[in-house]
Amino acid sequence: MLKTMLKIDTRFIHKDIRKRADDLLSPACNAFSELVAKTCRGREWTGFWNYPQQQGYEVNKGIDSYISTIPHAYDAVVLLGIGGSLQGVQAVHDALRKTRLRLLFAGYHLSAGMTNAVLEQLEQCQPLLVVVSKSGETLETAVAFRVFRNYLEQRYRKHEACQRTIVVTDPDSGSLRAFSNANNCQAFSIPADVGGRYSVLTAVGLVPLALAGYDTTMLLQGADAFYTQMINTDNPAVIYAATRNAAYQADKHVEVLSYCDPHLRSLAAWWQQLFGESEGKDGKGILPTTMALTSDLHALGQYLQDGRRNMLETFLVVEDMQSASTQVPTDPLPAVGQRQDYLANKTMQELNAIAINSTRLAHHDGGVPNMSIILSRLDAYGLGYLFAFWQTACAISGALLGVNPFDQDGVENYKRNMLALAGKSGLESEAEKLRSRLQ
Amino acid sequence: MLKTMLKIDTRFIHKDIRKRADDLLSPACNAFSELVAKTCRGREWTGFWNYPQQQGYEVNKGIDSYISTIPHAYDAVVLLGIGGSLQGVQAVHDALRKTRLRLLFAGYHLSAGMTNAVLEQLEQCQPLLVVVSKSGETLETAVAFRVFRNYLEQRYRKHEACQRTIVVTDPDSGSLRAFSNANNCQAFSIPADVGGRYSVLTAVGLVPLALAGYDTTMLLQGADAFYTQMINTDNPAVIYAATRNAAYQADKHVEVLSYCDPHLRSLAAWWQQLFGESEGKDGKGILPTTMALTSDLHALGQYLQDGRRNMLETFLVVEDMQSASTQVPTDPLPAVGQRQDYLANKTMQELNAIAINSTRLAHHDGGVPNMSIILSRLDAYGLGYLFAFWQTACAISGALLGVNPFDQDGVENYKRNMLALAGKSGLESEAEKLRSRLQ
Repeated sequence: MLKTMLKIDTRFIHKDIRKRADDLLSPACNAFSELVAKTCRGREWTGFWNYPQQQGYEVNKGIDSYISTIPHAYDAVVLLGIGGSLQGVQAVHDALRKTRLRLLFAGYHLSAGMTNAVLEQLEQCQPLLVVVSKSGETLETAVAFRVFRNYLEQRYRKHEACQRTIVVTDPDSGSLRAFSNANNCQAFSIPADVGGRYSVLTAVGLVPLALAGYDTTMLLQGADAFYTQMINTDNPAVIYAATRNAAYQADKHVEVLSYCDPHLRSLAAWWQQLFGESEGKDGKGILPTTMALTSDLHALGQYLQDGRRNMLETFLVVEDMQSASTQVPTDPLPAVGQRQDYLANKTMQELNAIAINSTRLAHHDGGVPNMSIILSRLDAYGLGYLFAFWQTACAISGALLGVNPFDQDGVENYKRNMLALAGKSGLESEAEKLRSRLQ
Repeated sequence: MLKTMLKIDTRFIHKDIRKRADDLLSPACNAFSELVAKTCRGREWTGFWNYPQQQGYEVNKGIDSYISTIPHAYDAVVLLGIGGSLQGVQAVHDALRKTRLRLLFAGYHLSAGMTNAVLEQLEQCQPLLVVVSKSGETLETAVAFRVFRNYLEQRYRKHEACQRTIVVTDPDSGSLRAFSNANNCQAFSIPADVGGRYSVLTAVGLVPLALAGYDTTMLLQGADAFYTQMINTDNPAVIYAATRNAAYQADKHVEVLSYCDPHLRSLAAWWQQLFGESEGKDGKGILPTTMALTSDLHALGQYLQDGRRNMLETFLVVEDMQSASTQVPTDPLPAVGQRQDYLANKTMQELNAIAINSTRLAHHDGGVPNMSIILSRLDAYGLGYLFAFWQTACAISGALLGVNPFDQDGVENYKRNMLALAGKSGLESEAEKLRSRLQ
């Protein structure tokens, strides 16, 4: 059963690209070996590989025992984070939607309206605050931390506010670590060798998910199973990486991830960050975009079928969504009762599968090569497996593309401008130049 | 004041593309004239132009007077629709978030989980059901209609269920029209000369929005103001259409709409459908994608800054989001109090504007031409104006690209497969062929 937790179907990749992909299997296997041996480019960031066995289970135990000692009642968790410090948690929460309390998100934007909406909801809750930032300097999270700290201190006074605040940050340095030391807050560490977008199975994801009542042990076990099984040749991560690079070489510069249920939207966003930030550099990289099935067939379906032929499509299909089966009732339209007779006695799940298969065929016929990632079931275990699969595939894919899949120097450019325009001292002359360009 | 409801800033479009855009202004103006004169390609679908004065205000009055006669108390509206029958309403609702009741959505997917979640919420409500589909045959909406009709009939019995059901469909034909005739349901008509993605300001959008308590008169007045003002040379729709086509000619095959607040996500999705479905055909068209600011800078920012240089970026900036101002409190980090001193005494709104300006400069410097659409305020009037602007720009842009911006033949391909695979009678041999390809 474990063997088929995840399969890749490449039948609807056109022949020329499949041939290229075959040629890339051997370099992809090499890249995989270098990842496992930690001899690859960016090797100092490969701590995500086999993390559950290395540290994850231990960290998870520590989190569980902390949770059993929390001195105050709580029925809500507010997670402050952005990018890699947020998207993995949102992915799990959106996909599984089973929490024992309210899980709210802030610190990922500079929207006063969104911030105020979360603050309003807290009036009916007893919240804990989890703030996640490696440096503690991330603007959006730092701003939200001030707003929510202020709220907690006014409501609970300083001592209890600190007890309701949990920090996930660098083990030694940075302003959040300094804050937690000075105020005696509970703190967890982000490992030094795991980058933000590869961190969902570290304390970054485990702390808020465990607090919200998700089964983080199952999440780790799913990832662990992937790492344990993948030391063999039919590695789906190798196949996925080789296929998308083959498509890229054949001028497919965009990958559309078409996911089988709107509940997977945050998971798709997590995938988009993982691949976009890992590969979009040095003037190259597949642009990752996403599409919800079947909703977005009524928005992007026309483009996929008949627009510019520069796309690879990847279907994310889940065989068992673990939701109650919904039978379609008989037709309420007596006047035209026979027109949709083919719907009768089908479940929504069956119709969704038919729609997706129809789309795979139609897009292939329209000239869009497509593959499917088929996950056998959507639970914490399956998600853990999928996270590990995609992170591994991303490391391999970046190596094939010839980039370092673990850095992100490009995000510094707007940040430098921002600090100057926001008035950080020492940057006055840069700020003046920028302002003159904006006038 | 009305004159500056919307401005376009093209300063951060690189010179070569700006020159091309200048050359396209004259054909764009011609395309605009042909739209107004209804002599353009696809002229039979140009009913959206000047619709408020042509019919919109009248239709809106009819809706208001119907609402005053609804015989049952209600505190929720469930809208069943997909694509153009849904996305405009979601755009307004997400952007303004001010309803006098609960507004829920279904019929836009085949997800049993999402459907059940809406049904659960109804237990605490007294709902009305609004079903929107021109043909009545749209699979997702038809399936949901059966499920929700069934629910209403079991809860209220047939007579009251019909009184709680409002149909928006073709004036004469189709299964929903037949249903409403047979069951004496309230029905509103979708005009014959307005396509789905251009229909937000017709009964398609006005009925659910008015029921939810939005100011649909202001929405129409905003659009009306655009149509009235645009018969002149500084037409921002002409500038936008010319600029994006100039970028496309310069091999910018993707347009990223970077919107200034996460609350504009559904509006961006509406834009994506409008342009993707209008232009993605005949093997061409800019692929429309979207990015939430500042959140997605931590996901796609790296790609935008340093990935493949095949993108045009359009910032959607709102000067007044009409949300309460949020001052950033003083730094709660005593240990490192000086590090983020530049945040003190700024509002989130100011920081958001700084972040966006920083990004415009950085992406320009990184080789991504970008323009900004600057809307003066986010209310029903501003949204109406923006809808009319973009629909007009899309008609012009499609004409410049040399496609019919009003058809969508490509979406039929997967639908044909779907009917066959779902077992529609008469398609048995086609179904067999498809099944053998899937095995």
